[in-house]
This record gives sequence, structure tokens and C-alpha cells, in this order.
Amino acid sequence: MSTTRNPRTWRIGVAGLGTVGSGLLAFLAERPDYAPAGGRVVVTAVSARSRSRARPVDISHLAWFDDPVALAQSPDIDVFVELVGGSDGPAKAAVEAALQAGKAVVTANKALIAEHGAELAALAEARGVPLLFEAAVMGGVPAVKTVREALVGEDIQSLSGILNGTCNYILTEMEASGSAFADVLAEAQRLGYAEADPTMDVGGFDAAHKITILAALAFGGSPNFAAAEIQGIANVDLLDIRLAGDLGYRIKLIASAERAGEGARVRVRPFLIRKSHPIAQADGALNALYVEGRRIGRIFLQGPGAGAGPTAAAVAADIADVMVGGCRPVFLSPALELRPCAPPEGVVAEGRGYIRVMVRDEPGVLASVSEGLAEAGVSIESFLQKPPGDTPGVPIVMTTHAVAETVLEAAVSRIGRLPAVLEPPRLLHIAGI
Amino acid sequence: MSTTRNPRTWRIGVAGLGTVGSGLLAFLAERPDYAPAGGRVVVTAVSARSRSRARPVDISHLAWFDDPVALAQSPDIDVFVELVGGSDGPAKAAVEAALQAGKAVVTANKALIAEHGAELAALAEARGVPLLFEAAVMGGVPAVKTVREALVGEDIQSLSGILNGTCNYILTEMEASGSAFADVLAEAQRLGYAEADPTMDVGGFDAAHKITILAALAFGGSPNFAAAEIQGIANVDLLDIRLAGDLGYRIKLIASAERAGEGARVRVRPFLIRKSHPIAQADGALNALYVEGRRIGRIFLQGPGAGAGPTAAAVAADIADVMVGGCRPVFLSPALELRPCAPPEGVVAEGRGYIRVMVRDEPGVLASVSEGLAEAGVSIESFLQKPPGDTPGVPIVMTTHAVAETVLEAAVSRIGRLPAVLEPPRLLHIAGI
Repeated sequence: MSTTRNPRTWRIGVAGLGTVGSGLLAFLAERPDYAPAGGRVVVTAVSARSRSRARPVDISHLAWFDDPVALAQSPDIDVFVELVGGSDGPAKAAVEAALQAGKAVVTANKALIAEHGAELAALAEARGVPLLFEAAVMGGVPAVKTVREALVGEDIQSLSGILNGTCNYILTEMEASGSAFADVLAEAQRLGYAEADPTMDVGGFDAAHKITILAALAFGGSPNFAAAEIQGIANVDLLDIRLAGDLGYRIKLIASAERAGEGARVRVRPFLIRKSHPIAQADGALNALYVEGRRIGRIFLQGPGAGAGPTAAAVAADIADVMVGGCRPVFLSPALELRPCAPPEGVVAEGRGYIRVMVRDEPGVLASVSEGLAEAGVSIESFLQKPPGDTPGVPIVMTTHAVAETVLEAAVSRIGRLPAVLEPPRLLHIAGI
Repeated sequence: MSTTRNPRTWRIGVAGLGTVGSGLLAFLAERPDYAPAGGRVVVTAVSARSRSRARPVDISHLAWFDDPVALAQSPDIDVFVELVGGSDGPAKAAVEAALQAGKAVVTANKALIAEHGAELAALAEARGVPLLFEAAVMGGVPAVKTVREALVGEDIQSLSGILNGTCNYILTEMEASGSAFADVLAEAQRLGYAEADPTMDVGGFDAAHKITILAALAFGGSPNFAAAEIQGIANVDLLDIRLAGDLGYRIKLIASAERAGEGARVRVRPFLIRKSHPIAQADGALNALYVEGRRIGRIFLQGPGAGAGPTAAAVAADIADVMVGGCRPVFLSPALELRPCAPPEGVVAEGRGYIRVMVRDEPGVLASVSEGLAEAGVSIESFLQKPPGDTPGVPIVMTTHAVAETVLEAAVSRIGRLPAVLEPPRLLHIAGI
């Protein structure tokens, strides 16, 4: 028998054998030599909904558990990998059971960490075991490691990112094909890029889970999903994608977190972003993250945010970190000292707006709209009027100078009541990055 | 006295108080609460060339060492931070002394790691202490951590990056201002963006040090600087920047490492890269890195590659990693098992070329050039002839289909001998990414 520096074999239990779980098993089967930090990694036990379901990997030689909690507690595993998903239910119960049993946990579950991160971190730290979740955010792109470890010495001011590939794919396809949201969504579902129930993705909730986690890591709090302001892409109009394009912008679903007063503003919403910005150029299913810090300046990360390969590689990297050892708080500070990332108190969000108004094509309309905005305290930065098309009325599009969002919203309501305005004006925000 | 979870204070000795060293002292002075992983971080001793030189930070309360080796051996420090620079001399002696004394070492010294990484890693691992060098590559962008830790489970196929901000600044300015290399360099020196002796930067050596380190981490060898093929930017002509622009490309100094046969091809040279590629859009002093892997796909990182703030933050992150503990090989495998990253044996580099020929403006010249290329086995992909300008003769510019670089070079020599060709043709390579 050969002598190795660290002959220990790490026994991995995997709960959840969907895309990522099967990807992880395939990865470790292909790489029997995978031995970061010296020890070998072997999956010894699995749990999933159905034992007999056809899978791309053979699981017949592995111990089987119907119940992920029983797997999590098994004395025959060293690391519990949770790929079940969902913020509560079996995923949470199993992660808690593993931590209570003193086992390291690796998870790809953003909902779980965003909604219960503080209590799970406290449990992990009380037991002295790691709780790692690189795969929960941006798949194979090391967003968590970058914010948690590489930028630990940085005063991060803001994070802005495309954190949901399904939404980015849909918005990219709408722009490229000129098809409406519902049609592109249906096609994405047919191709398997979107779920049968797409609410988590297109409603912005998945991106909100992810930015909640990054905000906690960046700003030194615990995840506070309840405080995130969330808006999805279901109301993004093809017409606005086109008009924004004419003005030099793309519409992207941006998840952002920024310091504001004593708190942090965390939100997900469709933003106009100038085409030359790296985030605007992250197309299709790509994910991207833009970090602004006081010392480092601006860092940009981009890559595939989902898929079996990238996500399994992120899980494998977390397993390597478990093997390496060392003791670092789950978030930036020990869990017992953490307070939830608080929303800003009394700090009004400001920004530039994009306003589209459908008006009757008659003299004086433009003057009344611009007067209405001016009286409401909003000043116009640029203006675009397109010739009448196949829509009723004529679209007038304006971008505004930066102003309090409350003022902008009031101004938009005001011009919506003008007689020549045919439908409620559409307000979108322009990203400040 | 309050009880803390980890009351230990980590005593840091800093050798070298230039931009980065002063930046680190300023950072820690601003952040007396900097306590990643619980312990506090305090600089207790410094060494530099002159004790009395005016500095942006006060060092009067710190222990002073004239000799960095003496500082490295001091029993009053726990971590030795080497910011002296240079592949040999005091930097190497001090790092060796610190490792031999069983102290963790953090360095920003790319030349040292690229040229002596294997022996230093062996020493660090024999003593069981970490040797970290995040700040050596891409300043505040976590390139080392990404490749070393996050992509530990990835089969990286290639890395391509802009790793020298000075060269990127010069090329960007040449394009923007229409000034020649020498003029832009002189201006960069005046502004402090380039050194008085710019050889390390503009000769490509600094970028070669960095890509040598990344290649070792990515491909599981030890750094092999001697095997890097290095070409700088001093011969990049303004005319070629313009003509490449007309064809849809930018010229960037790209440091690349790719698997080739059983080895890896590591090189630095000016490449044409299509304008839509993220790397082409990293302008000014930005650094960028594009990683292609078999599982994760393509990951892109971008940010400031130098400067006091970013580099000091990277050093601080490495100090945090030292405090966290854990044991990971310095490179991908234990140093005693490493072999130098070998250059490819018998694997011919292939790629597309950009050829500029200055010819007499007379009938039949184009035919003779294209025949010459065809006979040499090179097929033309696109072609551009500009009207005569202020240069003698007329520039003809071609891009070729992919072909062995040896064939391309022979073809270029061949057409250089045609009677109508006025000066040796200029060959540049087009990046395969």
C-alpha cells in the first residue's frame, strides 16, 4: 500500500439527485483521483424521492435512504450535501439534523440560506462544523467565496447582478426575436430552460434569495429575505425593450444591494442599464455580478449561473474547503453577533427614470406631459418620440435626471391623469451603475 | 475585560513600505476592528530601505528592522508580509527565513513565486505553514483564490487574460489618442502609470510571471517561468491598432495558458481580439481573466489589477486566510509531487493571423500576395485595402483562417520577398477565444 500524506477518505452523503446531485455523482465518478488537500472523496450514501428513477449515474452500489434526515444523521458519512431544495420541509430538517450530528454541510439551496441562514449558522458554529453554500449563488462562478473571503477586507458599497439565468434568457430572447414575454416563456419551458411553474424565477424570488445571501456576506449581517423588495419580469413589455434599446439601454433583471444610511437596500427589479456596461452584455443564461468597494474599486464576475457541470463543480469546491479545514464564521461575523441586514430607515431611494406614455397624436400633448413632470419636480434628461405604429396612440419616451423615487412615482401618476394620455404610463428605473 | 471568541492577536511584520506596504498599514490603521475569523490583526514591525522617508502612514510606534531577513526571523511576529519585490535578493532570502522559522508568509511578489514557487512551496509545506500570494496576480481581483480554490474541481482548459495594467493603459491610450507607443509610454511615465524602466511591464515579463503562476495552479504543476514565450508591446504599431479596429478587433497584450498535448503552452503576446469579447472591453488599467473549463464553461473576472487599495485588500484577505487556518497545498498538489508545467512537446500552435503588407500601389500586387499565401498553405479569411495615406506605399491587410503558426510565419516570410512588398510584413495573431 502506498503511503500518502493524508490517507483519509471523506464519505459524502448526497440528498437530492436532480440535475446537480447527478452532476456531482458523475463528477466524482469521472475523477476518482479528486483529492484536494490530500484526502479522497467518495459518495457513500444517497437519498432522493425515487430510488428506481432512471438517472445518468449508477447508484446501485450506494447506501440508500428514503429519508434525507436519516441520511444526514448517518454515522457512515462525514459530509452532508443537501441538494433537495426548498426553504423548509425536508431540506431544512436534514441540514439541521446533519449540523446537530456535528457533520459539515454543503448546500446549493439559496432559499434555505436566505430564509434561515442565521439560525443554521448559529447551529453550525455551536457545533464547530462548516456550512458552505457556494453553489447557491451564480453556479460555478465563485460569488460567495469572492465576497466572503477575498473581499473580507473590503468596504463593499454595493452589489449589482444578474443572478437568475432564466430571466436573463427570456429578456435576451425577447430582444433578439421580438417576441412577447409569454411566448418566450412558453418556448423556454418547452426547451427546459424554465420550470413548469416559473414563479420563483420570473417573479424575481430566486434572484432575491441570492442577493439576500450576498448582501449578508458583504455588509456583515444575517440574511434578511423578508426585507428584499422584489419585482419580476412578467410586466416587461417588448415595446419598452425596443425603446430602451433606441436610447442606448438594455432591460435586465438586476438584483442589487447597497448600503443606505445605517442599513442596506436589497432589491430585485427590471432596470435599464446602458449597453456599454459589462452587466448589460451578459446575455442568455449568463449570470454576472458587479461589486463596488471603497478600496478595491469595481470588480466584475461573469459565468454560467446554473447547470449540472458548473453547480456540481461549486459543490465539489465546497467539499474541498471542508477537507482543508480551518474555522471561519459562516457569514462575516460569528452568528450570535449578527443582526439581520436592516432595510434603510428614512433614506429615500434616488435614481433616474424611464417613462413611456402612450398619448393621442395631437398638438400640445408633449408640452402638457413635460409641464406635468416639471411641476412634479422631475426634470427630463432625454426624450424620444416614435412615429405612430401598430399601438393605439403614439409612445413618448423620456429619461429623467436622478430624483427621489417617490417623487418620480408621483410625477408618473400625475401625467397619467392628463386627458391626452391613453393608458397608465410605464415607469422603469435606470441602474445607477 | 470583555470575553471574545478568539482573543488572539496576530502580529504582522511587513517588509517593504512602498505603495502596497503603506496601503496595508493605512488599511489596518483605518480598521482597528479588522478581525476576520475572530482574532485581531496588528502590524508590530516593519522593514524598508529608509526609515526616515516621508510616508503617508506613521511608523514611529513600530519595531524597525534594517534587514528584512531579521524581521522575518523575529520571534515577535506571527505572519511575515513580503512586499519588497524582485525574484531574488532580499525578498527571497526573507521569505525563506520566515518559512524556515515556521511563520506564515503573505506576499505580493509575482516574480518570486513564478521563478521560485516550487522550492518555496516545498519549504512552506515541510514547515506546515501557509504561503499565500493573492496580491501577486490581478491586485484586488481574486484570480488566485478562484483558480486555486473555487475551480479545484474543474478541468481548466485555458486561461487568457490582461494581467498588466500598464500595457493595457498604453494600448488603450494609443487607440484613443492616436499617439504612437513611445509617446504614450512617456506620458504614462510622467503620470506615474509606468516605471522609469518600463521593461518588466512593456516587455511582457510582469504578465508572464502572473500567467506562469495561474497556469501552475490551473494545471497542477509548479510554476515554470523559463518555459513561457514572452513578447511585449513595444512593436505594436498605431497603424495596426487602427486597421485591426477597422476589421472589428482590438489589440491587447494577452497572457494565456492552455493545455496542449501532455503539457501547457504559456505565453504573453499582443493579440487581436474581437471587440465584442469581454476581454477586448477591459480598457485602461483594468485587468481581466477569462477561464475556460470543461465543466463550468467560461468564467470572466475583471477589475483593477494594481494600486494601493486593491492590492492591500488582497494582502489583508490572505492574512485572514492565514488566521482561518486549514491546510491546503500551496499549489494544487503537495509540492514534493509537483513537476514543472511542461511546454507542449510536438503540439504545433495553430491560430488565425493578421498580416499587414505595405505594397507599391500598382496592378497585380494583390494577386501576387494572395497567391504567395495560398502557395504557402494559408487561406485568407478577410481582406482590407486602405487608400494610400501618409505612409510609403499602400497597406494591404488580411486575416487568415486557422493554420499552424509555423506555416503562417513561413508564408509571411515568403510574401515579404515579393518585389512589390516595401517592408517586412507585420504578423499578429488573432486570439482563439
